[in-house]
Amino acid sequence: MRGKLAHVSTQKLPEDPIPRTISWRNGKVRVLDQRALPRRVRYIECATIDELCDAITSLAIRGAPALGAAGAYGVALAAHTLRTARRVRAAAARLEAARPTAVNLRWGVQQALAAYDDGGAKTALATAERIADEDIARNRQLGSNGAAVVPQEARVLTHCNAGALACVGYGTALGVIRAAVEAGKDVRVWVDETRPVLQGARLTAWELDRLGIDATLIADSAAASLMARGAVDVVVVGADRIAANGDVANKVGTYPLALAARYHDVPFYVAAPASTIDLATKSGDDIPIEQRDADEIREVRGVRLAPDGVAAHNPAFDVTPARLVSGIVTEVGIARPPYTRSLPGHVRRAALVVAGGS
Amino acid sequence: MRGKLAHVSTQKLPEDPIPRTISWRNGKVRVLDQRALPRRVRYIECATIDELCDAITSLAIRGAPALGAAGAYGVALAAHTLRTARRVRAAAARLEAARPTAVNLRWGVQQALAAYDDGGAKTALATAERIADEDIARNRQLGSNGAAVVPQEARVLTHCNAGALACVGYGTALGVIRAAVEAGKDVRVWVDETRPVLQGARLTAWELDRLGIDATLIADSAAASLMARGAVDVVVVGADRIAANGDVANKVGTYPLALAARYHDVPFYVAAPASTIDLATKSGDDIPIEQRDADEIREVRGVRLAPDGVAAHNPAFDVTPARLVSGIVTEVGIARPPYTRSLPGHVRRAALVVAGGS
Repeated sequence: MRGKLAHVSTQKLPEDPIPRTISWRNGKVRVLDQRALPRRVRYIECATIDELCDAITSLAIRGAPALGAAGAYGVALAAHTLRTARRVRAAAARLEAARPTAVNLRWGVQQALAAYDDGGAKTALATAERIADEDIARNRQLGSNGAAVVPQEARVLTHCNAGALACVGYGTALGVIRAAVEAGKDVRVWVDETRPVLQGARLTAWELDRLGIDATLIADSAAASLMARGAVDVVVVGADRIAANGDVANKVGTYPLALAARYHDVPFYVAAPASTIDLATKSGDDIPIEQRDADEIREVRGVRLAPDGVAAHNPAFDVTPARLVSGIVTEVGIARPPYTRSLPGHVRRAALVVAGGS
Repeated sequence: MRGKLAHVSTQKLPEDPIPRTISWRNGKVRVLDQRALPRRVRYIECATIDELCDAITSLAIRGAPALGAAGAYGVALAAHTLRTARRVRAAAARLEAARPTAVNLRWGVQQALAAYDDGGAKTALATAERIADEDIARNRQLGSNGAAVVPQEARVLTHCNAGALACVGYGTALGVIRAAVEAGKDVRVWVDETRPVLQGARLTAWELDRLGIDATLIADSAAASLMARGAVDVVVVGADRIAANGDVANKVGTYPLALAARYHDVPFYVAAPASTIDLATKSGDDIPIEQRDADEIREVRGVRLAPDGVAAHNPAFDVTPARLVSGIVTEVGIARPPYTRSLPGHVRRAALVVAGGS
């Protein structure tokens, strides 16, 4: 799985080769439709909260940091299209409820709602634009902080998609990988395909291909045997919510990776913006885990696999206990155990950075 | 996921509701084509060794015990269709090489080849028929032995398909589950879908549905979080080869299950006929692991998921170290650690049972 990485630093591509996931255009929220990837680059123009909620629940846009921006743009959309503050608040509540696990969605909604209260629709939109723009800068900083955990020659394993497509741009776990490559490290990536929705196969493999970073796809359940034969140097994943004690909710399949990593003494890092840290949630037990449609298990891309009528259980996330997490990379630095002590500082310093307009 | 199990004991179905996977018919080897399941029950008539080898490598017939019978029937087919002993031996070698991990294939070939040497084509066929018929009786005995490890009210997790479809009939891991149900236990089964070939979703879910046993399909990577919330009482899986020290090669994804089971103190059992035990293989390090086509990862049932050209790594099996295995259920009983001491007795006693014509 070796590849030439040299062209990454000299690439001629204008700016980022991964399109921006969400933006404001002509009074609508424009969303890159990730359901069509990797086949097609296609956009949805959301003119109503209904359309945006549908884009969120159907995973046209997904990933905790992207959902933060989507929540904020959603409030801006509501403020521009609905006539009363009561209706805007009702729309905000619907946006927040669209996906329950990622705390960033609520965070983005609340930020824009506070701005709306302060200065109306224009201020809400300005806040959404700021959150989106800052997302990219924040992820670059996060990536740069996290690159330190990637060895000079590294085989990195990641799960799901915590790339540019999970954010507004650049990525969190993939941001760490990109920053390591940009720093001249020789990085090869094992990509968990990530059943049931296959964000690894469809999105992460596509991003890494566009970035010219060496990637090899595996079935999720092949990761442990790769670790057993010493073929994984570090695991880096994203997060949908991090509790105050450092427990991490992330895409289902993260927890067994963390178990295998611990068993094989492979460092296990979580990369997420500080907005993913929810100090109001004490531990993983308090994180609501979204249950998704059983057909995501019974089918793949519309092809029925299982017998009709078989029951299926489809939790979208699992919780990795803090004791299995080597460190949590944010835009502030790397939080280390005990997380009850290190995480509040990350939240505080990240807020100061934002207040300072960085 | 609760269901009424009472109808299992009173079912009106003539004999086994799962069709026999392999038989001899009019000078051909008739194979249930499992690639078509669960959509269609379809058969392939193999008139040549080429056709049978293709059925084996393409997974039309799969599962270690079924491959034992396929190997024996294959030698019988060779003996009936080829003119010289040299050609029959060459065909036997090709059959053995069709899949490298499951030791039963080689075992079946060798049994039938010895019979051929003794008495020619007719004797080879008689041996193949005996192996096939004994498979069902052996699995019933194995199931009955293993039912003891299933609690009275049990949520059993299994991986891949170690059912009737992996054998000639009845099943090994699913044989244990069937025997527990037949003994009046209240059993609910978590079925790992088992990427990449989805034997869990396609075959195990279908078998359990036909048997009226309560089954719920999950993504492979959801098993660990089920264990974390105490929803799994015991794991029972099959095996493709068991080394002399008790290391178990089985479908990729078995090893991370065993790791999670150990972490959560969930008993982890392997169910396999003694013919799966390879005393000539010292440890798991010596078991060849079949690497299969990357397209099994890049596609699902012909639907392309990943970007074109992305690399994929596709080991068909992994190795679970003996220290993670609570017990190995065979037709002789339950082998316990230390396996270097317990397994030779199982092999010896199983051979005596066969010699006695049981």
